[in-house]
Amino acid sequence: MDLLSIKSPAFLKSMTIDELNELSMDIRQFLIENLSRTGGHIGPNLGVVELTVALHRCFNSPQDKIIWDVGHQSYVHKILTGRAGQFETLRQYKGLCGFPKMAESEHDVWETGHSSTSLSAAMGMAIARDLKKEQSYIVPVIGDGALTGGMALEALNHIGHEKKNMIVILNDNEMSIAPNVGALHSILGRLRTAGKYNWVKDELEGLLKKIPAVGGKMAQTAERLKDSLKYLLVSGMFFEELGFTYLGPIDGHNYEELLENLQYAKKTEGPVLLHVLTKKGKGYGPAELDTKGTWHGTGPYKIDTGDLIKPVGQPPAWSALVSETVRRIARTDDRVVAITPAMPVGSKLLGFAEEFPDRMFDVGIAEQHAATVAAGLATQGMKPFLAIYSTFLQRAYDQVVHDICRPNLNVFIGIDRAGLVGADGETHQGVFDIAFLRHIPNMVLMMPKDENEGQHMVNTAIQYDDGPIAMRFPRGNGSGVAMDEELKQIPIGSWEVLREGTDAAILTFGTTIPMAMKAAALAEKQGLSIKVVNARFIKPLDEAMLMAILEANMPILTIEEAVLQGGFGSAVLEFAHDHGFYGHVIDRMGIPDCFIEHGSVNALLDEIGLTEETAVRKLTAMTPKKQKRA
Amino acid sequence: MDLLSIKSPAFLKSMTIDELNELSMDIRQFLIENLSRTGGHIGPNLGVVELTVALHRCFNSPQDKIIWDVGHQSYVHKILTGRAGQFETLRQYKGLCGFPKMAESEHDVWETGHSSTSLSAAMGMAIARDLKKEQSYIVPVIGDGALTGGMALEALNHIGHEKKNMIVILNDNEMSIAPNVGALHSILGRLRTAGKYNWVKDELEGLLKKIPAVGGKMAQTAERLKDSLKYLLVSGMFFEELGFTYLGPIDGHNYEELLENLQYAKKTEGPVLLHVLTKKGKGYGPAELDTKGTWHGTGPYKIDTGDLIKPVGQPPAWSALVSETVRRIARTDDRVVAITPAMPVGSKLLGFAEEFPDRMFDVGIAEQHAATVAAGLATQGMKPFLAIYSTFLQRAYDQVVHDICRPNLNVFIGIDRAGLVGADGETHQGVFDIAFLRHIPNMVLMMPKDENEGQHMVNTAIQYDDGPIAMRFPRGNGSGVAMDEELKQIPIGSWEVLREGTDAAILTFGTTIPMAMKAAALAEKQGLSIKVVNARFIKPLDEAMLMAILEANMPILTIEEAVLQGGFGSAVLEFAHDHGFYGHVIDRMGIPDCFIEHGSVNALLDEIGLTEETAVRKLTAMTPKKQKRA
Repeated sequence: MDLLSIKSPAFLKSMTIDELNELSMDIRQFLIENLSRTGGHIGPNLGVVELTVALHRCFNSPQDKIIWDVGHQSYVHKILTGRAGQFETLRQYKGLCGFPKMAESEHDVWETGHSSTSLSAAMGMAIARDLKKEQSYIVPVIGDGALTGGMALEALNHIGHEKKNMIVILNDNEMSIAPNVGALHSILGRLRTAGKYNWVKDELEGLLKKIPAVGGKMAQTAERLKDSLKYLLVSGMFFEELGFTYLGPIDGHNYEELLENLQYAKKTEGPVLLHVLTKKGKGYGPAELDTKGTWHGTGPYKIDTGDLIKPVGQPPAWSALVSETVRRIARTDDRVVAITPAMPVGSKLLGFAEEFPDRMFDVGIAEQHAATVAAGLATQGMKPFLAIYSTFLQRAYDQVVHDICRPNLNVFIGIDRAGLVGADGETHQGVFDIAFLRHIPNMVLMMPKDENEGQHMVNTAIQYDDGPIAMRFPRGNGSGVAMDEELKQIPIGSWEVLREGTDAAILTFGTTIPMAMKAAALAEKQGLSIKVVNARFIKPLDEAMLMAILEANMPILTIEEAVLQGGFGSAVLEFAHDHGFYGHVIDRMGIPDCFIEHGSVNALLDEIGLTEETAVRKLTAMTPKKQKRA
Repeated sequence: MDLLSIKSPAFLKSMTIDELNELSMDIRQFLIENLSRTGGHIGPNLGVVELTVALHRCFNSPQDKIIWDVGHQSYVHKILTGRAGQFETLRQYKGLCGFPKMAESEHDVWETGHSSTSLSAAMGMAIARDLKKEQSYIVPVIGDGALTGGMALEALNHIGHEKKNMIVILNDNEMSIAPNVGALHSILGRLRTAGKYNWVKDELEGLLKKIPAVGGKMAQTAERLKDSLKYLLVSGMFFEELGFTYLGPIDGHNYEELLENLQYAKKTEGPVLLHVLTKKGKGYGPAELDTKGTWHGTGPYKIDTGDLIKPVGQPPAWSALVSETVRRIARTDDRVVAITPAMPVGSKLLGFAEEFPDRMFDVGIAEQHAATVAAGLATQGMKPFLAIYSTFLQRAYDQVVHDICRPNLNVFIGIDRAGLVGADGETHQGVFDIAFLRHIPNMVLMMPKDENEGQHMVNTAIQYDDGPIAMRFPRGNGSGVAMDEELKQIPIGSWEVLREGTDAAILTFGTTIPMAMKAAALAEKQGLSIKVVNARFIKPLDEAMLMAILEANMPILTIEEAVLQGGFGSAVLEFAHDHGFYGHVIDRMGIPDCFIEHGSVNALLDEIGLTEETAVRKLTAMTPKKQKRA
C-alpha cells in the first residue's frame, strides 16, 4: 500500500493477516530505501515491523499509551501514525526526529533517547490513569539491552510491587547495540530455549498425580513441592518473582502469535511481561547477518551490496584514536583496564578486547555501575579507563562525585561524543559535561586540539597519579595531523599559545579552535592583533597564563562547544573576579540555555551563532580603541 | 572486655562462642552509652554486632576486603579495628566520621554514604585481585533496602555474569530506613518464611525417585522437571537465576550459624549471596520496637526511657513545613501526587500518606525511577511533588535533564537538606545542586528565606504550569516566623529587597540571609550603606532588579551556601558580562572547591570562612571610596 497515504493507525483494525504481512513487506522496503539515503537506526526498526503493526492494531493510540524505550526503534510507529512523508528529512535539520517527539505527533506520548526510562514513565502514566479513573492500556516496549539499566530494574521492582495494570513488551533481539552481557541475558537465553511458556502445562497435572500420597512431614514437603512446581512451570520465574505475569517467548515476526498474546495480555490483571523474540535487521540481508552492531545505526548505504557510503581516506575516528592509544599503553602497563557500558563498538574497544580479553569489561547498559567498578579498580592500584559518551556520563554523575572524585581515585574517564553530536539531536548532545564536572572537587578536565595532542593526553591521563582525570573528545574523525611516534605527557593545567597577539585573546579548546583561528585571521584584516590560546585544560585553568593575559589588560573572548551556564567561560569570569580583575572585558561564546535539536553540526552551530562571524563581531566590539587606531 | 584496648580484629580468632557473645554484649552497651551522648545511626549498628564480629573473625581484614554499603552501619567495624576511643567525637568536627573513611584506617577499604555502591566497588576490587593473581576474599555487606537501588541491581547482573569469587552479605532487617517496598522485598519475605535453604534437600532425592519412569516425550518432560526441581530447591532462585549461589536465610544474631555459613561461603566457587536476617536496634528496647524509622539515626537520648533529647519549643522542621503545605494544597487539587525514594520519614510525608494513601508513592531507594515516575505523571496532567534530598538528587541528574527538563514537564522537585548538613559529612552535603541544576534549560530554581515564604513557594511551584520547578530548603528547623493563613504565589524570577542601601548590594538567599543582614549592619557602623536582596530565584534571576543594581554601579557581593564554581554568584557574573557591565565589582562567597567533612554547620562555616566577618571584609574592600568618605 501507499505508506504516504497513512493518516492514523486506525486502518489496521480491519486488515487480514495476509494484508498485514503484505504491509510489513511494504514498510521494510520503505525503510531500506529511505534509510539508504538518509542513514538511521535501520537494524532496530527492521526488527520491530510486525511488533509495531500488531501493537497499533491491538491498542488504540494515543488513548492507549505505547512507550518506546530508547526511541530509535520508533520509525515504524512514525510511519503508521502519518509521518511516512517526512522520512526524506529524517534526522536532518528541522526534519523528522530520529526519536519520538511529543511536538511531532499525539501518538508520541513519551520522548527518549537514553535507554531504560520507559518503565518508569509507564508507571507514572499508570498511576495517573488510575487516579483519574480512566480506562486505557499502557504499553512500554523495552529491549533486552535496556532492561539491564538500573532504572529499568528499579521500575520492575516497583511495578511488580504496586500491581498496576500494564503490558510490558520485552523486545528481545539478543543484541541491543552490542551483544548483551549480564546474568539477565542468560536468563532470557534459558527462556528462549525453554520454548513456549506452556511447554508442560498440560502434562503437569498428570505428573503431579503420580507422586504417591505420603503422610507426616513428607506430605507437607510434597505439598510445598507441588506449589513450587506450579510456580516454576509458569516459566519466566525471574519476572514472576518480581510480580509480573510472564507470557512468552513468542515469535515477534508472526502476526498470529503476536495478536493472540496481546489479546491475552489485555485480559490479564496486573502487570504483564510479554517476551517477544525479534531479529534485528529482519528482511535486509546485510543487517540480518550483522554480528558486530554495525547495522544498529548507519549512515547512507548501497542497498544491493550493503556497503556503507563513507567519504574515503578519512583520518581516524576520535574513538579509535583514544581506544587504540589506551591499548598501546596497556601493552607495557598491566594496570590498565578498560570499562564500557555497552559501547564496545561505538567506543572502538574491540581491538583492545581482542588483545586483552581479561582486561576489558563491557558491563552492559549500566553507567552507574561502570563508574563505580572503575572506582573499585582504582582503590586497588589499577588504572581504569572508563569509555563513555558525554550524554551517558550524565547517568553516572553521582558516582563521579561520590565514588570517584570524593575519595580522589585515579580513574581516567574518556568522554566520547562531547559537544554537538548532530543527527541524534537533543537527547544526545554532549554539551553539559563541562558544567556538571567542573564544580566537582579533585576533577581534572581536558580536551585536546587534535589527534596528536589527544594521544599525549591519553598518556597523560594514564600516568596521572593524583586523582580523577577526564578527557572530552568529539564525535567523528580527527583532522589528520601528523602523529608523534613517542607518547609524551602534557603538564596538568598547562595551556598553549597557538597564535600571538596583543589586542585581545581568544581562549578556546577542542573543536572550536579552527573557528577561533579563522576569526583571529579575519580580525587581523580589521587591524586587530588577536592571541589564540589552546585552553586544553578546562580544569584546572592555566592560572599563570590567564593571569598574564589579565595583567596585560587584554580583553578575553572564550569559546566553547558546551553550555555557557557554569561552563569554561564562567570559570574564566570566576578567576578574573576572584583575583580582583573587575574592570576586565570578558565575553563568552557557547551553547545558549536551551536544548539543541537534531541537524548537522554546522547547521546547528550556525543557528546558535557559534561561528567565526560572531567571534569577529565580539572581538571588534571589545577593542574599540584598537580599531580606531587601526 | 575493654573495647578501648582493641588495636586490630586479630584477637577474635581465638575466642570461643561464649566469649563472642559476651563481646557482643559489651559492644552493644558501648554503642548505647556512647550514642546516647553523641547521637548517630544506632539502629543499624545494633543490628550488625554479631555479623560484624563474625566477618572479622572469618576474614583477614584488610587483605580481605569488607565493604560496607551505606557506611552508617560501620560503627562495630570501627570498634573492632581500634577506634573505640574516638567514639566520643563521633560525627563531630575533626572527630570520628560516621561513615567508613580510608584516611581513618586501612580497614576502611571503601567509602560510602550513598547507598547501593558496594557491589560495584566489590566487582572492581575482584577484577583487580584476579588480574594481580592475588588471593583474597571480597565481602560486600548490603542491606535489603540498598539492594533496590538501580546500581546494585546493575552490579548483581554483572557479577552473576562474570562469575567472580565474591561473598555478598545481604543484611536483611526488613527495614532499611523506612519499611521497604518493592517486589524484591516480597521475594525476601518469601525466602524468610521458607526457612532454611535446605529444608527439603535431604528429602528431595527420595521424592524424585518416586516419580515413575516414563517413556517418549513424557520422559523428556520428566527430566526437565527434575532439573527444574533441583534448581528450585536451592531456594533463593531469584538470586540463583542471576548467577549467585544463594545461602540462607540464617539468623544474623547466632554465631554458630554465621560462622558455619561464612566458612561454607569461603569454600564456594563463584559469587555467593548469604542472606542474613538481623534485627535493627537489637538489644536496645526502644530501638527494637521502632516501626517508623525513628531509631535509624538519632540525636542524643536518655538511655533508660529512650526519650530523644531535643531542644523544646522548636519551630517546625523544614521537611514538615514543605510536606504539610503540599498536603494542604492536595486537599483541593487532586492532581497533586507525592513521590519519595525511601524517605517518607525524613521527608515528613507520613501525614500526607495517611490522608492520601493512593496519592503517595514510596518507590524505595530508586532515585532515578522516582524522578521519571514524576515525569510520567506530569505527561498526564498530574502535579507530581518529588521529595528528595539534595545529595540524593545527584543520582537522578540524568533523569532531571532528559526526562523532566528536556520535555519541559511540570514536576515540582522539593530539594531537602540543601546546603551543609553537618554531622553526616562529605557524602551528604547538599552543596552541588545549584551547580548541577542551573545549567539545565527550562529549570526554575528557588530557595525561600523563611517558612512563610517557603509555604508560598510550595504553592507557587504547584500552580506553576510552564515546566519543572525546584525549591531547595535546608536541613533542620525554620526560624519560627509568623505564617500567613492564605497561600500566595510569588512571581517567578522576582527578588525582594530586605534592606535598602546605596554603597553596595549583597545578593543572597535562604540560610545565608541572616548572616548577610548582620554583615550589612556591621558595615553600617563603618559608614557603609548596604542593600540586601533576597535573591530567592536562583534561576531565572530577577533581571530587572539586577540590571538596576548594575546600572547604579553598586558593587555586588553574592553569598550562597553552595559550591562557588558554576553557582549563583557565577550566574550574576555571567549576567553582568553578557550585558556589558565589564567594569563592575562583583565578589562571591560560597563553598570552595573541596569536599567538606563532617562537623556542626557553624564549625564548617567558620572553617571555610562563610561568615559575616568575611562578608564585612569584602564589603569594605569593594567600597574604598565610600569608606574614605565615611
